[in-house]
Parts: sequence; structure tokens; C-alpha cells
Amino acid sequence: MRTSIATVCLSGTLEEKMHAAAEAGFDGIEVFEQDLVVSPSSPEQIRDLAAELGLSLDLYQPFRDIDAVGPEQFAANLQRAEAKFRLMDRLGITTMLVCSNVATAEIDDDEVVADQLRRLGDLASGYGVRLAYEALAWGRFINDFEHAQRIVDLADHPNVGTCLDSFHILSRAWDPAPIEDIAAEKIFFVQLADAPLLHMDVLSWSRHHRVFPGEGDFDMVGFMTHLVRAGYDGPVSLEIFNDAFRQADVHRTAVDGLRSLRWLEDQTRRALDGRPARGRLQLQALPPVEEPDGYDFVEIRTGRLGETTRLLHQLGFALGGHHQSKEHVQVWVQGPVRIIVNNAVPEDAPTEVAALGFEVADPATALERATRLSARPVSRSQRDDEQVLRGVFAPDGTEIFFCQRPGNGVPAWLGEFGADEEIETGALVTGVDHINMAQPWQHYDEAVLFYTSVLALAAQPAQDVPGPSGLVRSQVMRSANGAVRMPLNVAPTAAEQGSFVGAAYPEHVALSCTDVFAVARRARRRGLRFLPVPQNYYDDLDARFDLDDEFVAALQELHLLYDRDAEGEFLHFYTQTLGTVFFEVVERRHGYSGFGAPNAPVRLAAQYRRTHPPRTTDPRSRTGREVRGTSPIGSTGTGAP
Amino acid sequence: MRTSIATVCLSGTLEEKMHAAAEAGFDGIEVFEQDLVVSPSSPEQIRDLAAELGLSLDLYQPFRDIDAVGPEQFAANLQRAEAKFRLMDRLGITTMLVCSNVATAEIDDDEVVADQLRRLGDLASGYGVRLAYEALAWGRFINDFEHAQRIVDLADHPNVGTCLDSFHILSRAWDPAPIEDIAAEKIFFVQLADAPLLHMDVLSWSRHHRVFPGEGDFDMVGFMTHLVRAGYDGPVSLEIFNDAFRQADVHRTAVDGLRSLRWLEDQTRRALDGRPARGRLQLQALPPVEEPDGYDFVEIRTGRLGETTRLLHQLGFALGGHHQSKEHVQVWVQGPVRIIVNNAVPEDAPTEVAALGFEVADPATALERATRLSARPVSRSQRDDEQVLRGVFAPDGTEIFFCQRPGNGVPAWLGEFGADEEIETGALVTGVDHINMAQPWQHYDEAVLFYTSVLALAAQPAQDVPGPSGLVRSQVMRSANGAVRMPLNVAPTAAEQGSFVGAAYPEHVALSCTDVFAVARRARRRGLRFLPVPQNYYDDLDARFDLDDEFVAALQELHLLYDRDAEGEFLHFYTQTLGTVFFEVVERRHGYSGFGAPNAPVRLAAQYRRTHPPRTTDPRSRTGREVRGTSPIGSTGTGAP
Repeated sequence: MRTSIATVCLSGTLEEKMHAAAEAGFDGIEVFEQDLVVSPSSPEQIRDLAAELGLSLDLYQPFRDIDAVGPEQFAANLQRAEAKFRLMDRLGITTMLVCSNVATAEIDDDEVVADQLRRLGDLASGYGVRLAYEALAWGRFINDFEHAQRIVDLADHPNVGTCLDSFHILSRAWDPAPIEDIAAEKIFFVQLADAPLLHMDVLSWSRHHRVFPGEGDFDMVGFMTHLVRAGYDGPVSLEIFNDAFRQADVHRTAVDGLRSLRWLEDQTRRALDGRPARGRLQLQALPPVEEPDGYDFVEIRTGRLGETTRLLHQLGFALGGHHQSKEHVQVWVQGPVRIIVNNAVPEDAPTEVAALGFEVADPATALERATRLSARPVSRSQRDDEQVLRGVFAPDGTEIFFCQRPGNGVPAWLGEFGADEEIETGALVTGVDHINMAQPWQHYDEAVLFYTSVLALAAQPAQDVPGPSGLVRSQVMRSANGAVRMPLNVAPTAAEQGSFVGAAYPEHVALSCTDVFAVARRARRRGLRFLPVPQNYYDDLDARFDLDDEFVAALQELHLLYDRDAEGEFLHFYTQTLGTVFFEVVERRHGYSGFGAPNAPVRLAAQYRRTHPPRTTDPRSRTGREVRGTSPIGSTGTGAP
Repeated sequence: MRTSIATVCLSGTLEEKMHAAAEAGFDGIEVFEQDLVVSPSSPEQIRDLAAELGLSLDLYQPFRDIDAVGPEQFAANLQRAEAKFRLMDRLGITTMLVCSNVATAEIDDDEVVADQLRRLGDLASGYGVRLAYEALAWGRFINDFEHAQRIVDLADHPNVGTCLDSFHILSRAWDPAPIEDIAAEKIFFVQLADAPLLHMDVLSWSRHHRVFPGEGDFDMVGFMTHLVRAGYDGPVSLEIFNDAFRQADVHRTAVDGLRSLRWLEDQTRRALDGRPARGRLQLQALPPVEEPDGYDFVEIRTGRLGETTRLLHQLGFALGGHHQSKEHVQVWVQGPVRIIVNNAVPEDAPTEVAALGFEVADPATALERATRLSARPVSRSQRDDEQVLRGVFAPDGTEIFFCQRPGNGVPAWLGEFGADEEIETGALVTGVDHINMAQPWQHYDEAVLFYTSVLALAAQPAQDVPGPSGLVRSQVMRSANGAVRMPLNVAPTAAEQGSFVGAAYPEHVALSCTDVFAVARRARRRGLRFLPVPQNYYDDLDARFDLDDEFVAALQELHLLYDRDAEGEFLHFYTQTLGTVFFEVVERRHGYSGFGAPNAPVRLAAQYRRTHPPRTTDPRSRTGREVRGTSPIGSTGTGAP
């Protein structure tokens, strides 16, 4: 499958975009007109740069508002088009995107439009240019790909074909199946975009909220299977208008984009069992990955060893041992839960979740898949007598390791810590329920695709949780077997509320158990500092659920929170935060499937009070660039408050 | 008019919100349930704090999904309600917001709903509580305020009244006029919210995009006049759900909110000529302000005197003189344009627009109005023999001065520079066309209201301009007479593209003239460094407009850009950027009313290339918190790239 990307997807200059696309491994690009117009490079220089980078220039786009106009206007449009054909000749681009008319369309007559496309085709053929006609979802008269196709067929010109854009088709909920009825040779180009299902006008939706395949809600695999069955074998190109991508690092975005196409190609191949009917499109398969069936370990790196191990002990963990060859590395265990404490950092280093180990059937294959998906491998040193661990960096920099599903329940690497048996006694914790990871807003979509494509997790519907520093967007990534749950949280970017928000937004490890009261009591005995829960919360619980008073009193005594859904109940408590990490212990009764979302605001508020000093009424904070001005005719400004 | 604000509008803890509301000058607040639930303060403590701060607790909100349900469910709802009535008693709040049922409504029967409200009213009366019933715009059966009113009338209970929320009424485009037919004593509460006109589902619109009155597109003044005519005299309260407000400094937001009510009160009074028919609501008037009829001066503060004055000279400015008492302050003049150069800062201080002077009829009154609107005055020192200049800080920290409209065309303060006459020769610049100010995203709405309420400017529709670092949102603030035009630009927040974006986003002063060729030629003679315009731009101009080649050649020779609209033509050029400021010179031919928006991307790209070094392919930039992880079982991490 030939991969391509529109330059409008990427940030920076045209030359930066081209370098990034080539480095990411794209075969070609679409040249977005404005990117060329604002560039000091001549068309010939762009052509040469593309050749040098091994990029094909697949499409020149867009050409707008040519059709469905009166004769005079059309004559002017032909002039405008010819200037572009000359330009394309200098660029060496042979396909132009022609969008159905939005702004100037006057004549709602397919014959007229077809005739105008035919005449444009005649002009184009003189320059060896093919026209890919696309129905914009908000086109004045033509906004449906089947309608556009009828017109292309009417035009019946070798240089006039169709461009199919998944957004314009799926956003309007047109059935994509009829794509299979289009003659393959008439599909001149294909643009792909996914998007979250938003209820807003389709133009704004399209201009600001498109995402790469796998990052949204559209059925992109279904769309691709129709294309393959139609026999299309041209480039498959990404055209994404996304406010965040426009700002993000161009190299990251390009890598993210290619990953989305490789994943889609693989998924499509599987959907077709690799045997597309008339399919001429060659679909590469990726090495397979099965969903993980558990967390093998969690690594916490900290400069504060004492506080960290005390917290672990209070939660019931026992010291499993010290690593035989790696100084300052311990393992703490409780039942099946293994937490690596890595103290090989300076004292002032942050305390954070540094790495996650996932149990998979075939680590080597999983790593191969991940690297094929442009994930950057983690390289680590080990002795010959030590386990080989395979991992890659997640978009947020966390190390993700693929660990061999242990036969006897005990991973081989534990031997490197000389772990004993008797440490297993008194385990009340039964596993890792979920791990809540903070994501920088500009790489959130990238993270969703990463966990989808690399670990076969699926994104659940996102929700907003209100906190004192703003809304926190939370989306759970989950394995179908339910063994792995990982909420991704995007914290507010607020510049004004100090360290609580943004990068320092806390993450947490939630441990499961069957008797949260017992875990909490032991923790209290061992001196755990619980996250405080206000009295008002318990009063409100009473009002929301009819719980008996003893039960509520018991919850309150141990700082436990409570939630209930149709299936069952959820009891949990939080520890205070160490660095950027805290722990939660949860008990799920019956089939409760949530994460206590109604209680999240209580947690956020309590954490805010802990980490955020009462605001001083600093006047400086009230006018932004306070001392920007001094005074009109230049007082020394000393007067300004 | 009694002013109130819902705590949900503000960031931080409940106590922080209360302090901020009181300091801003609100009379009362609405207590948003969740803010109390997550607070460690008891209801009694909140009651005491409110008393101490002089805030009335006007409303407890929200109570949801009580009505249109079956008998069993309703019985449970009554229990839930009674718990809240007890809580309200402890808080000393006597009015509760009851929202029309969204989630659990089953019975679409006004009689049933009225009966249930009546029974809730009976229960409430025992606690001295009044119920303000509100039709949510997305209520299952009741989503229209007139429908809600019919039900309230049916219920016919002294403790059951209505709550009117401008968002729920105007977002659905219900006609607000029938408000006047509601019996005043039945309007228990009023909530105000403005919003930009967005085409999206009303729930998301309501939850994320509300703004303070005067910051959106709703006719808030019209809404208020109906309310006054209805005879309502209770609190007028702000209920704004806004993602940015939730993150912003709570004190700023509170001040911004009160300003919106003071402005609305004044506008409503004017709309009613101060003589509301049955109006019992006391409306305070603000000191009047007329729209400015020009810029009196622009102050640029810079640590780089030589470069600044060279640039001014190249543009045709002459040194007008040095200030008699303020060291390091000069004035440069050309025709009616006066630019203060304030060098009373260290050499490494940024070069920026520090202050703007606006010509108004009555500076003292304008200042009084601004301070009544909670704008912070600029205090400056002057000698007894010097002009008194009155100013306030704009939200972005720029100093805004109200200057006496000069009789003879020469402001009195110019005398303090000992300005001569002959400096006037050779003026080609005829005025300030517009001044383009960068705004931090989180204070953008505040800025719109500031210029609307303080300077009587009006907001034009916003548009997005694509640049290499993301979309720049641009909204023009303009005086009705056209004398003052001020585009406000919100630059992308991108963390990843260095100093070009965000705070350092350049601002500019656009000068008008009648012969841009002459200005450009003189500038070139004097060695001006023009912002370069690429050849591709001129090729594209040819394709877009049929211009004759000599004309295009003439434009290109002087780095001029061109645009055209229905009325006329626009020719302009840009200088390179000094610090965070650059200049533009524009010639408007005939009635061209735009700002050359189609050319803005050319400028942004050229500035990006100047200020943004070619990106090195630094792998660190590709994974965010790069060295977050070391390796699962604690390698020293030296292996990580």
C-alpha cells in the first residue's frame, strides 16, 4: 500500500514537512497549495527536494469552486486552472484535487457540471494532468460521493476521475459500500481521515477535529475494505485538519500518521483474511499481537526511597529482594503484584511511574510489531545470565515492556532479585485493577493510537471530570478480556495555577482486593496517610443512596469512597501523593464496571488543597503581562501597583 | 441591581471562590452542590464565611430529575430532596434550583409534573425553601421556559416559582418577550450567560462555551429589558460553564464577571431610557464613554533604542523631541502619528507595545467609567507643569490611556517634548490604520469585554489564520466610526515550537497612507529590511486576480502584498520584527474594508522562518518526557537514547 500525507497535516515550513514525512517513511505527499505559496523555494526546488528525499508528489490540492457556474465565470475559472496546470508541470505533479463548488455554485444541473469537468479535462490533458473530483460534505449542490461519481461518469473523460475522502463520506453517514461499484480506474485518489463523533456543523468538525485513522470513531477498516474490493491500487493518503497537529512537533506527527496507516493496512488485511476479491492493493501484514492478560510489573523511579518503600509497606507489600547486578533497584511484592523501585537517580529526582510491564504471549513478536509501527525501542543492558526484556517508549515517554506470560505465575526475572517464598504471606491485594496515566494534551490522540495498535487495547468513550484547576479529560484504554485497564488523563494546561496542573498532574496505580476494609485497616495500623475525604461527601452519599448509617460510618472511619452502578458496588481509598504518583485500593462488588468517576472530583479537590497553597491575592496575577506598559509618555513606571 | 455568581464559574476551592467573588464586589453567590461536597468546610462554616465576606447565599443548585417520574421513583426523589432541604437549612439558603428532568423522565403530562412540584413545594415550605423551576434546553419533556411557566402556574404553590436562564432560552432561539407576561413574584431567580453562536449540540455548547454577558453573540440587553419590564427585582446571577474560566486565575475571572454585569446593567438602563414601565429593578448608570476617534499615540518600550529609531526613520518618522522631565523618552512623529519611544529600561528589555493613547471627548469621565468597571488605574508621576494622563491596564497588561481630543490637532503633551514645526515636512503616512495586539488565550474573552465596555469598541466576527505554528484566532475590535480598529490575536499555545508562539507572538502597528509605493521606496532608500515575500506568492496572485504584469512586477520590487474585495483594493508591506513588534504600511483603495487576511499566512510563514531556526531532528523531541522511564527492572538507563 503506497502511503501519502497532505502537507496541511503537519506544522512548520513546507521543507520541514517534507523532511519529516520522508523520515517517518511515507512514500509520498500531497502538496497543499498554501504551503507552496508561502515558501521561498521555487516549484523546481520542491520537485528536486522531493526526489532527493525519495518522496513522490502525489497530489496538488485544492482547486475550488470551478463547476456549476455561468459561462463567464467558468471562462475565468479555466484561466485560473491553467495557471495551476503550468505550476503543476513545474512541480512534476500529475493529479489535481478538484472540490465540488461551495461558494460560487449557481447551476444545479449535472449535465452542466459534467460538461464543465469535461472541458476542464480537455485543458488538463494538454498538461498531462488528471483531475480527481471530490464531493465536499458541505458542497452547495454536490456533497455525496455517489452523486459526484454520476457526474464523473457523465463527463466520461480519461482525465476526469474521482477522489474519495473518508471524512466527507462518513461524517454525513453515507453508506460507503457503493464504493465497490466504482470502476477502479476511475478512482484517481483516496484521502483518509478519522474523527471523533461530534455533534457540530460538519465544516467546523472537518476543519478542526479530524484525527488519524484509529484515533477517532469512524469505521476506517470497513471503509478500506470497500476500497480494496473496488480494486483501487493508488496511494492511500492522510488529509487531517487538526488544531493540535498544527502546533505539535512535525516529526512526531508524521510518525504518528504513518503508524495509523500501517495499523489500518494490517487491520484491513485481517478483515479481508488477506484474500480481497478483486483486490489489487497489496496489504502488508504486521506481526500479530494478542491483548495482554495482565501487568507483569510497575516500575516506580524515585529519589525518595524511604518514603516510597514506607508507602508500599503500609499498603501490604513486602520487600522481594535487591537486583543482583543493578544497584539501587528493589522489587516489592504482594500476591501477583510486583513493583520495582528504582532508586538509581539523584535524591531530588521526581517520583514517577517510569515503566510498565505487560504480560503477552510472544514478547519478541510484540516488539517486532511495535518497531514496525515506528515505536522507539528501549535499549537496556543486562548480563548474559539475566532475562532479556523488550520494550518501547510510549508517546509520553513511559517505557512499555512486553513480558513473557509466566507459566508458574512467577516471572523468570524475579530470580534476579533472589526473591524468597515466605514474602507471599498476608497478601490482601489481588492484582492491579488499573493504572491511570497523565498525557500531555498535544499527544493524547497519538497515545490512543499507540496503545490501540501496539498493545491491542480499545478506547472507551471519554468523559470530563471537573477539578479545581479545570476539566480533566479521561479516556479508558482497555483489553477486551478486561485484564488491562488504563485510563489516560489529559490535565488542563492552565498557565496560572502552578504545579498541580500540566506535567505534574498526578498518576496512580490502583490495586484490587476483595476486602478493602481489611487493606485499609492494616494500612492505618502501619501509619498510612490517607487522602482525606470531607464530611460533606458522606452526607451527600446518604442523600444519593439509601445506605445504612453504620455502613457509612465504617466507610468514613477509613476514608473510603463509595459508588454504585446497575451491576454492583465500588469501594476505594486513595493515598496521598508522592512526587507525581499515588495509590488507590479498590474493591469491586459484583459486576461494577466503572472507576468511581463520581468520586474523582473529591479526589482532585483534596489533592489540590494538598499541593496548591492558598492563593495570595497577588495583584500581579490579575493583569497578565503586568509591567508591559509603564506610562504613555514614559514615566519610570514606578507608580504602577 | 443585586449581582451574584455561581461558584461553578470559578476555579479553585469553594473558599477561594467565595473570597474572589467578595473581593470583586459581588453581592452574593450561587452554591454549586459539588463545590460544597468536595469541601472540608462544614455548611455552618460556609455560612459564617459568607457572612464574614458580606456575601449572600442566593441559590443552592442544581437539583435534578425530580419530576415526570412514576410514584415509586418520586417518593425516593422526595427523600433525596428532603436531605438537601436539611442541608440548605444549615447553609441558610432559601432558594433551590430545580431543573426539568433529563435522565429519568417517563411521564409527559403537565398535570402530573405540576402535582409533583406542588408536593415538593409542600415539603420545601416546611424548611422555608422556595423552588425555582428551570426548563433545561435539553430537558426530556420540558425545555421551553413558557412551558415551564405553565407548569409552575398549574402547580400554583407559593413555594414554587420559575428560574430564567438566558442560555436555555436564547440558545434555542425562543422569543424572550413573553418573559414580560410572567408575574414578577413568580420569577424566583435569574441566571445569565452569553455564548458565541456555535453550531453544535446544545449540551456541549452549554457545558463548555458559555461566556460572560458582552463576550458572546446573544442579545443580553434585550433579554434584560424584558426582565425589567416583567418587574423582576431579585438577584441577577452569572452561571457560566467555560473550560478556560475553570483554569484561569479565580480573581481575574471574578472581576471579569462583575464587569460584565455592570456593563449589562448600564446598557439595559440606556435601552430603557432609565424609565422601565413596571420596572422595580434599580439600574445603576455608568459614566458615559463615547467611542474614540483616533489613536493619540503609541508607546513602544525598548532596550534597543538605535534599532527602533532607525526603523522609525526608515518609515518616514522624524524625531519630535525629548521629554523635558523623563529621561530616555523621545517622541517620533509623522503627520498625525505620534510614537513614543521609551528607552528607560535595561538593554536586554523586550521591545514591545507598552501603551496606547486613545482620543476621547472626556478623559476624566472615561477613566471614572473604566475604574467603575474594575479596570486597574495606571498611576504615573508628572510635574505640576505637565499634562495629567489618565489610563488603566488592559487584560494583557498594556496601558490604555484616555487622551483629550486635541483642538488644533496637536495634543498638549507634545509641548513637553519641545516639538518643532518643521518636523512635519515629508509626511507620507496619514494615520494609524490598525494596531494588532496579541492576547493570551485564557484572557481573550476578558479582553473583548474590556474593550467593549471601557472603550465602546464592537467585536467583529472572528476568523482563524493558519500559520506554521498553528491557527491564529483573530478578532477585530472596532469603533463604529471606523477611526479605531484593533485586531486581537490569540496565538497557539504550542509547547513545542519555541519562542515564536505564545507570549512572544509578534504584534504590529499598521500605518495608513495614500501612496504605499512612495512610502516603500523611501523606506528602501533608507535601508529598511522588508519582510521578504516569496516569488510563489506573486505567481499565485496572477492566478487569483487578472492583474497586469507591470503592476505585479512593481508590487514584487517593493515586497508589497495585494488583496481585493467587492469594494476595493488593499496594498501593504511589512517590516521585519524588532523584539515582539513590527510595522505594516497599508494603502486602502476605494472602500476596501478588510485587513488582507489572505496574505496573513505569507507573513506568518516568513516571520516563522526568521525567528525559528530550522528544526534539528532531535530524537528527544519525539517522546515527550523522554527519560521518564529507564528500564523495567532498573537498568541504569544509560542505554536509553
